[in-house]
Amino acid sequence: MLSGYSNGNFKYFNRLFLAYVVIFIDMGKRLIVQKYGGSSVANTDRIKSVANRIAKYKKQGYNVVVIVSALGDTTDELLELAGQITDKPSDRELDMLISTGEQVSVALLAMALHKIGVDAISFTGPQVGIITDRTHTKAKILKISADRIKGQINKGRVVIVAGFQGMNADQEITTLGRGGSDLTAVAIATTLNADMCEIYTDVEGVYTADPRIVKDAKKLSVISYEEMLELASLGAQVMQARSMEVAKKYSVSLHIRSSFTNEEGTIISKEVKAMEDVLVSGVTANKGEAKVTICDVPDRPGIAAKIFTDIARHDINVDMIIQNISRKGYTDLSFTVPVAELNKAKDMMSKIVRSVKAKGVVYNNEIAKVSIVGVGMKTHSGVAAKMFGALASKKINIDMISTSEIKISCVINKRYADKAVIALHKAFGLGKK
Amino acid sequence: MLSGYSNGNFKYFNRLFLAYVVIFIDMGKRLIVQKYGGSSVANTDRIKSVANRIAKYKKQGYNVVVIVSALGDTTDELLELAGQITDKPSDRELDMLISTGEQVSVALLAMALHKIGVDAISFTGPQVGIITDRTHTKAKILKISADRIKGQINKGRVVIVAGFQGMNADQEITTLGRGGSDLTAVAIATTLNADMCEIYTDVEGVYTADPRIVKDAKKLSVISYEEMLELASLGAQVMQARSMEVAKKYSVSLHIRSSFTNEEGTIISKEVKAMEDVLVSGVTANKGEAKVTICDVPDRPGIAAKIFTDIARHDINVDMIIQNISRKGYTDLSFTVPVAELNKAKDMMSKIVRSVKAKGVVYNNEIAKVSIVGVGMKTHSGVAAKMFGALASKKINIDMISTSEIKISCVINKRYADKAVIALHKAFGLGKK
Repeated sequence: MLSGYSNGNFKYFNRLFLAYVVIFIDMGKRLIVQKYGGSSVANTDRIKSVANRIAKYKKQGYNVVVIVSALGDTTDELLELAGQITDKPSDRELDMLISTGEQVSVALLAMALHKIGVDAISFTGPQVGIITDRTHTKAKILKISADRIKGQINKGRVVIVAGFQGMNADQEITTLGRGGSDLTAVAIATTLNADMCEIYTDVEGVYTADPRIVKDAKKLSVISYEEMLELASLGAQVMQARSMEVAKKYSVSLHIRSSFTNEEGTIISKEVKAMEDVLVSGVTANKGEAKVTICDVPDRPGIAAKIFTDIARHDINVDMIIQNISRKGYTDLSFTVPVAELNKAKDMMSKIVRSVKAKGVVYNNEIAKVSIVGVGMKTHSGVAAKMFGALASKKINIDMISTSEIKISCVINKRYADKAVIALHKAFGLGKK
Repeated sequence: MLSGYSNGNFKYFNRLFLAYVVIFIDMGKRLIVQKYGGSSVANTDRIKSVANRIAKYKKQGYNVVVIVSALGDTTDELLELAGQITDKPSDRELDMLISTGEQVSVALLAMALHKIGVDAISFTGPQVGIITDRTHTKAKILKISADRIKGQINKGRVVIVAGFQGMNADQEITTLGRGGSDLTAVAIATTLNADMCEIYTDVEGVYTADPRIVKDAKKLSVISYEEMLELASLGAQVMQARSMEVAKKYSVSLHIRSSFTNEEGTIISKEVKAMEDVLVSGVTANKGEAKVTICDVPDRPGIAAKIFTDIARHDINVDMIIQNISRKGYTDLSFTVPVAELNKAKDMMSKIVRSVKAKGVVYNNEIAKVSIVGVGMKTHSGVAAKMFGALASKKINIDMISTSEIKISCVINKRYADKAVIALHKAFGLGKK
């Protein structure tokens, strides 16, 4: 370069001009962040097919940053090893152990890209400066210093980052908890101000209802963060609520799609006017909860606070809470908890019942929560009535009701869950034309 | 602590005194570095048994730093995955991939120690500041900043470090090549000025000869670095030559022993006077080499240099080199190469033969190199004569001879290798009493 300069000013300016053009083009390139989940990289053949997909985007002129989860069941296999040693592994050592899974994936994907002639480089979470708080196994991302990623993008490379992991201020390896790779993708897309964040998974997108239950369920081409949040928390296992919240906060558009097809998936983005015309976007059923009812609780101020403080202290996640009208100074208090936490709840309920001087407690794990979700509800009335009517017409009794601005949930007998979903899907006209 | 101080000077001094005593005791503890190879941590049961061994040392009052290799065949399995993707993986990505193996081991071992109530913490190579050069897959350690390890030792913890790996100045993960975990152990023992470095493996120590060949082979209780170096390069697969050289340079005593028994193994240390009284310490045979003979090479200055420069350029490791007496301006030049590199050598020999105007080339992979090693040779004469005599008495013909200060090697027909080892072992009186 220096010798070129000494050859005369003309050449120098010429080169400067070229450099300008190159930088201009580079900055003009659209940046896409892609996240591939465990099923998309379950074995080396799938890794090769992911590499081919990335190469296609690269050829179309995109800059590509890729976030990868651990291969298929790797994380479970590592946890199984830990389980053979102890039933209470320390969180720090668990993070040390399971963070290796993603490191294997990124290295293999880089090799697969090299093999087909695409320049690529892999990094661990700590290497690209994903700094988290000090919590282990479910750390929060504090910041990402994206310089290293940007430097590699400017070299024309595909940058591959291990999902799910980071490093705290003490240089300890941390992991981000369930759905952590989604979170890595969204956080990196935010930091890099990416044009799109694609989440590749083994489903083709978000549907109006579970296609295994409702035959004519339709793939949604677009859905709002808020609706997706409700669907996620209601049991649609497409993406973790936490990642969606971050995406919403920073307005990162997400494209949920399958790595096994070339079909467009579902775009999750800000609410747009057109969405409001759709009354209901989707119907879900969650069969994973149980109902706890504390009977005849003395209706005094502070009782509910006492009960739910005790429950929270035992790390039990309460979902719906319903308190019936007080009769003669006594009330019934019902709430739902994940079935997996029911035994833990039972252990403490008798003590709570005694301490608040209630009459007793009743459990029911034969329930399902069916919900309808849609931003259109905000501006339309009569949606709840239509829902209750549809359930009534199928003679399905409603046990509990809870509503939010864009959601209505009803607890019913688990036996009728599928029937209810089909009825609601039909009542709101969600099926394929 | 501060409140204690405000309570009066007496308490303050009292505490200071206690702190002094504690530090004194801690500094007085002997520090032991232990390295466990892949077979010692092949599965979770073995990891538990390693944890028990460490606990025993800890209970005896030692400070313990542990270096661990990857579980059993993990490294091979990771290489197999890479092989499914490409036959030429980049060295950087290979390091990214295979360094995960040791990370899994250290986490599991820490869990196993916690389980039995021993305070322990695991680290990757980069985390404890093992800084290497920029070479990938066979990096050299440049320095170790041991502060983090020392800090944890002072907290009373067993410190577990992933062997085989480090980080270069660009924060790229590097690995140290074959035997890299031994090297990590020796380097850490040097840095921490450890009292002993134990290398746990699946053999019980260093023997006078391979016990599978020589029935009455004896375990050596002590051997010098120099002898062990010769034995290592001659095919005794106990420890890599490179680690031994570092140990020798910094006078780190090594204890090679088995993790499957409680037997003492073999101490490798500086040469001591008593060793010189032993004429020969061990006999080895290496069947992994082949002989290449270039016939009738014009005997001009610079010819040998030309030939071996060409060979080195193709990364072929030449071991013995013998040039016979020149007859009428022509000489025969023989050398040995690893059998695995013979085909590569063949590919280039015809060109070399043409370029030096030799008559031809002959290959022989039916050879074995038998050697005797011992520091006693330095001060005793007649050792070579005794060796040749022992071989002659068994009618074994000697093809090539090469000697160093503490070693004599003879190339013979592979068929007689075991017979030769047995004869030499007996001739030098190495057997059990």
